[in-house]
Amino acid sequence: MNILLTGFEPFGGEAINPSWEVARSLHNQVIAGATVHSRCLPTVFGEAPRVLAEAISVVRPDLVLALGLASGRADVSIERVAVNLIDARIADNAGARPRDVPVRADAPAAYFSTLPVKALLHGLRAAGHPASLSLSAGAFVCNQVFFELQHHLAGRGVKSGFIHLPALPEQAARTVPTVPSMGLGAQIDAVRLALAIALSGDEDPALAGTDEGSPTS
Amino acid sequence: MNILLTGFEPFGGEAINPSWEVARSLHNQVIAGATVHSRCLPTVFGEAPRVLAEAISVVRPDLVLALGLASGRADVSIERVAVNLIDARIADNAGARPRDVPVRADAPAAYFSTLPVKALLHGLRAAGHPASLSLSAGAFVCNQVFFELQHHLAGRGVKSGFIHLPALPEQAARTVPTVPSMGLGAQIDAVRLALAIALSGDEDPALAGTDEGSPTS
Amino acid sequence: MNILLTGFEPFGGEAINPSWEVARSLHNQVIAGATVHSRCLPTVFGEAPRVLAEAISVVRPDLVLALGLASGRADVSIERVAVNLIDARIADNAGARPRDVPVRADAPAAYFSTLPVKALLHGLRAAGHPASLSLSAGAFVCNQVFFELQHHLAGRGVKSGFIHLPALPEQAARTVPTVPSMGLGAQIDAVRLALAIALSGDEDPALAGTDEGSPTS
Amino acid sequence: MNILLTGFEPFGGEAINPSWEVARSLHNQVIAGATVHSRCLPTVFGEAPRVLAEAISVVRPDLVLALGLASGRADVSIERVAVNLIDARIADNAGARPRDVPVRADAPAAYFSTLPVKALLHGLRAAGHPASLSLSAGAFVCNQVFFELQHHLAGRGVKSGFIHLPALPEQAARTVPTVPSMGLGAQIDAVRLALAIALSGDEDPALAGTDEGSPTS
Repeated sequence: MNILLTGFEPFGGEAINPSWEVARSLHNQVIAGATVHSRCLPTVFGEAPRVLAEAISVVRPDLVLALGLASGRADVSIERVAVNLIDARIADNAGARPRDVPVRADAPAAYFSTLPVKALLHGLRAAGHPASLSLSAGAFVCNQVFFELQHHLAGRGVKSGFIHLPALPEQAARTVPTVPSMGLGAQIDAVRLALAIALSGDEDPALAGTDEGSPTS
Repeated sequence: MNILLTGFEPFGGEAINPSWEVARSLHNQVIAGATVHSRCLPTVFGEAPRVLAEAISVVRPDLVLALGLASGRADVSIERVAVNLIDARIADNAGARPRDVPVRADAPAAYFSTLPVKALLHGLRAAGHPASLSLSAGAFVCNQVFFELQHHLAGRGVKSGFIHLPALPEQAARTVPTVPSMGLGAQIDAVRLALAIALSGDEDPALAGTDEGSPTS
Repeated sequence: MNILLTGFEPFGGEAINPSWEVARSLHNQVIAGATVHSRCLPTVFGEAPRVLAEAISVVRPDLVLALGLASGRADVSIERVAVNLIDARIADNAGARPRDVPVRADAPAAYFSTLPVKALLHGLRAAGHPASLSLSAGAFVCNQVFFELQHHLAGRGVKSGFIHLPALPEQAARTVPTVPSMGLGAQIDAVRLALAIALSGDEDPALAGTDEGSPTS
Repeated sequence: MNILLTGFEPFGGEAINPSWEVARSLHNQVIAGATVHSRCLPTVFGEAPRVLAEAISVVRPDLVLALGLASGRADVSIERVAVNLIDARIADNAGARPRDVPVRADAPAAYFSTLPVKALLHGLRAAGHPASLSLSAGAFVCNQVFFELQHHLAGRGVKSGFIHLPALPEQAARTVPTVPSMGLGAQIDAVRLALAIALSGDEDPALAGTDEGSPTS
C-alpha cells in the first residue's frame, strides 16, 4: 500500500511552509502498513497539478493527501470541497495572478473530498488535536491542486483529499496581530493520525451527528 | 421584467430576520424597469426550496436573488458557489437537523452563482457599501435554497444567486461579544443597488482584477 | 448646562473620522437641557490635549465626552480606563511616534472614566445600539486625550469619559477583509443617547450585574 | 536568587489550566542562577492574592511572574497594566461573581508591570515564540492577582508582572469554533525564556521602537 502525501514550497514571502515540512518528515514512514511517499509541489498555477499528476503515476497510491498552509486558521482544517475556480489575490511563485477563470473548462463545478471527513474530524479531536471541517479551500493554488486531484482520481477508487494547516509558531512570531499557530511536531502527529484514519476505512455513520465548526447558516 | 427576491423567516431563536425585512421593504418596487416580487421562505429544509419553486413558477422572474442572514459577517456577502451538501449544526424551524446528506442525489457537486459577482462587489463598494465575495454559503437552509435555485434555473437563461446579510443593530445589541451589524436602511439600499447591477448586464472583464476579500490560499 | 463633545480629525490615511462627524452634527443641539459644544481635536500628541484643555476653559462644561475611532471594533465601545502610557504603533498627524513614555510623569498610572459606564451600556443596548465596555483605549492619541481629560477634571465634580466608535460603512467598504461598521446616523443617535444618560445621573446599582462583553479572565 | 512563579487551578468548567501546568513543570528548576518556586493559586477572588502574599513572604523572591489562561488569545500575552477593578462575567471557583468593585479601595487606579516588557516581547519573538503586549488583563481573578502583586511589591525593588497564556491544544480540540492554542512544551520554553530575560536586567531602550501588536488608537 502506498500513500502520496504532498506539501507546498513556501510562498507569499515566507521562508518555510509547514505543509512541506510535515510531508517531508513523514516521507518513507510506514503508517498502518502503507508507505508514505512525499512530494513538494511548486506554488505555481499549472505547475503544481502537473507535478502532482506525475507523482500519482509514479507512486500509484492507494490514498492521496495534499497539504497546504492557511495562515490565520487555528486548527487542522479538513477541506470538504474543491471548486472549479481560480481567483488569486496574490501572485503565485511564478508571478502569475489569474482571476476568475475555471480550473478546467471541461470539468464539474466542484468535487467533494473522498476522505472520511467526519471520521478524521472526530478522530483528530479525540486525540487532542484542534481540528475543524472547512467548506472552502479558497481559489488559489491549494484549491487548484485539490480540484485537479479529485478530478484526476474521480471514479478510480482511490481516496483523496486536502487538509489546510495553521502557521508554524516561528511564522506567527513575525505577525502583527499574531496569527494562531501549531507546532511542527503537533502538525506531524495530527497528519500521521489523519492518514491512519483515512486508510482505516469508511465514514462511521454514527459520527455524523456532532458539531464540527462549519460556517454559519 | 420581474425580479423574485426572497428572504427567510427568523430562526435560531431570533425574532427578526434582516433578509426578510429587506425583501419585504422592496416588494412591488420598480428597479431599473423591473418589478420586485418578494417572498418569505420558511427556515425549514425541503419546505424552503418548495416555496421558492412555486414562486418562480408564479412570478416567472427575469432575475432571482435569495437573501439570508449570516450573523457574524460584517458586510454584504456575495456568495459565489452553492454546494450539494446539507450538514446542519442547529435544528431548522421544524426541528430537523439533517447531517451529511446531499441536497439532491442526482445533481452536480456544486453550482456557481450566475450573477455578475465582481460587478456586484465593485459596484457596492464604490457606492460605499461594505461588501465581499464568499466561497461558502454554509451547509444549512440558506445553501439548500441557493443550490436548488441554481439547479432549477440551470440552462434557462435566468440569472440567479444568493447574498448573505449581516445582523441588524438591534440583534447585535443582544450579543456578547458584539457581532458586526448593518442598519436596515443600508441593507435595503445595498440590495436595491445589487439588483440594479445584476439587471444591467454581464460581468465587466475589467473589474476582475481587484481585491475582494476571498478566503486564504 | 454645557456639554463639551470632542472628535478627532482624520488620521492614518483616512479622509474622514466618524468621531468628528458625530460631534459636529450634534454641535449646538440641546440634550436634556444641556447645550452641546463640539470641538475637533488634531490627531497629534500634545496638541490634542492642549486644544481640549482650552475648550474646557472656554466652555466650562458640566459633562465632557471625548470620541475617537477604533477601526475594527463592531460597536459603541465605552472606555473604562485611561492609562499613563504612550506607545504609538503609527505616526500621528505631525509625524511623531513616541514609544514607551508616560502621558504625564507626575500623574497616577491610570484614571477611570467618571461616566456611569454600566448605565450607558445598558441604556444603549436597550435602545438597540450595539455597545460594549472596553478596558483599553490603547496607547495612541485617543488614550492621551482620555488620560489628560480625566487628570484635568479629577476632583472637580465634572463627569467625563471616552467612547470609541466603529468605522463608517464608506470606510469599511475600502477594507479587505471588511472591518465592521456603523452608519453615521446610528452613531449620532447612540452618542446623543449616551449624553442624555450620562447627564441623567449616577450609575444604577441594579444595572451592575449583566454581561457586558469585557475581556477574558 | 529566587523566582516565584504562579499558575491558576482550572476554572470555568475546564479540567486543566496551562498556567499551572507550565509553573509546575518549572518548579525547582534553576534559570540564570535563580531557583524557581512554583505555586498554584485558587481561582477564587480574595483567596488567590492571599496565597500569593503568603508565598512571597516564604520564598522572598527576587522576581515574581504570575501566569494565567486567556482562552482565545493566540500567543504569549505580556500584560502591561493591572487595573483596580473587579467585574466578573462568570463566577469564580467559590461561586462568587463580584461586579464593579475595586480590588483595593485604598490603592491607585492601576499599576504597571515592572518587568522589561519590550525586552520580553522581542526576546520571545526572536526565539520563535508568538508573543504580544496587552493593555488589559481583564477584570477577573487574573487581574486581581496581578494588581495585588504589583501593590504588594511597589517600591520594594522586586520586579514582577503577569503573562497570559493561550489554551492548550487538548482544550482547543473541544471548542467550536476552535480557539487558538499553543503546545505545553512551547509554553514552558517561552516562560523559561521570559524568566531568563526578566532576570537579566533592564529594558533595552533600543528595543522600544518596534511593532508589538498593541490595541488600536
